[in-house]
Amino acid sequence: MMKIVLASTSTLPGQDYLAYLQPVMQRLFSGISEIIFVPYARPGGISHDDYTARAAAAFAAIGIRVKGLHTFEDPATALKHAEGFFTGGGNTFLLVKQLHELELMDVLRQETEKGKPYLGTSAGSNIGGVNMQTTNDMPIVYPPSFETMGLVPFNLNPHYLDPMPEIKHMGETRETRIREFHTQQDVPVIGLREGSWIEVSGTEIRLRGALSARIFKAGREAYELGAGGDLAIL
Amino acid sequence: MMKIVLASTSTLPGQDYLAYLQPVMQRLFSGISEIIFVPYARPGGISHDDYTARAAAAFAAIGIRVKGLHTFEDPATALKHAEGFFTGGGNTFLLVKQLHELELMDVLRQETEKGKPYLGTSAGSNIGGVNMQTTNDMPIVYPPSFETMGLVPFNLNPHYLDPMPEIKHMGETRETRIREFHTQQDVPVIGLREGSWIEVSGTEIRLRGALSARIFKAGREAYELGAGGDLAIL
Repeated sequence: MMKIVLASTSTLPGQDYLAYLQPVMQRLFSGISEIIFVPYARPGGISHDDYTARAAAAFAAIGIRVKGLHTFEDPATALKHAEGFFTGGGNTFLLVKQLHELELMDVLRQETEKGKPYLGTSAGSNIGGVNMQTTNDMPIVYPPSFETMGLVPFNLNPHYLDPMPEIKHMGETRETRIREFHTQQDVPVIGLREGSWIEVSGTEIRLRGALSARIFKAGREAYELGAGGDLAIL
Repeated sequence: MMKIVLASTSTLPGQDYLAYLQPVMQRLFSGISEIIFVPYARPGGISHDDYTARAAAAFAAIGIRVKGLHTFEDPATALKHAEGFFTGGGNTFLLVKQLHELELMDVLRQETEKGKPYLGTSAGSNIGGVNMQTTNDMPIVYPPSFETMGLVPFNLNPHYLDPMPEIKHMGETRETRIREFHTQQDVPVIGLREGSWIEVSGTEIRLRGALSARIFKAGREAYELGAGGDLAIL
């Protein structure tokens, strides 16, 4: 049975890294003593070691050890032997390039599909979708493909931002950008506000957290799905 | 002698399409009766015909006819016979994919380097840079390469937005994103605010419009360059 949490963000304003997700992490990784952290998205260009240390500190609070995927000589085998996974945020292009070039995207998907718990935040959540083509990130590297794990039958737009009519700026709103995506593909997109996450439990897929999410489907008006809403029937 | 204008945006708040650039367009295209419009970026997914009609209306006001590049059976030859070019904004991934797949990126570069006037706005300005890797757009299609024309020795970030500390949102600021680009490449980046444009006149490259621009170079603090400032000595 798949056990997956895909969160919009790792951190809420004024809080510590992963603090608001600690109860979720405790349930998701219940009975597990060690997980593998995927640090490839490297927010702000920090080192894989430093990023892993940050994740390890947050998991230490719930009694779980963390090893960085970059520390293994054979990362594919490491994923196969792991008990669970956390992929942190940063730049989605970097993350996807690395996972494809090391041929780890399919391994991570297969191991998660077997029922090993998976937590993603931001870029780490994007790769749970069908492809990375609704990321907000800059294309700072060129990945061999935009395909991702497809653990859920839709794409995510993490850090979803509502239009701010008071700001006189002519750059596209997030909604406009997602509409443009739908001129090219029919994959539904979940605009996931900060503080929300998607919880997969077997065949059930639910919106969690206190906020509603904005649902974009090709050829129809965007609409709000309330907290707790069913995302399996999109 | 190269004659190029790369503008941050086509439209200022409350104004008509290209209105603020009309004096610039008059000088840039002086003595020219017809130009080719590159409509491939398709903002909001509008048709190439509709987008070309919008550009044609704006150029009619200064007595210049506009033909859409998509209407030519042999677009490469059309570019070679053209007197000047305008590439409109929209989605940079769409624009770059189409130009590469039709093998037009190099032709457009060569014709512009010969001295035919080139106007770009937003995505159409991005392709004047070394590569498209500092675009704000979503990767809604997968281009065969991120390389662009390199008419100027730096990249652009159009619609540049300063950090807004009053907004409690944990998505990366524009400055953070450009810093992440510099963990991968050394190409300087010009954060070009709406209302600003870059003017190339032979070997001279100047910042135009009333605003300063934010200059990002790998390994040093970002700084402001005042209106009229020299961009050739970056």
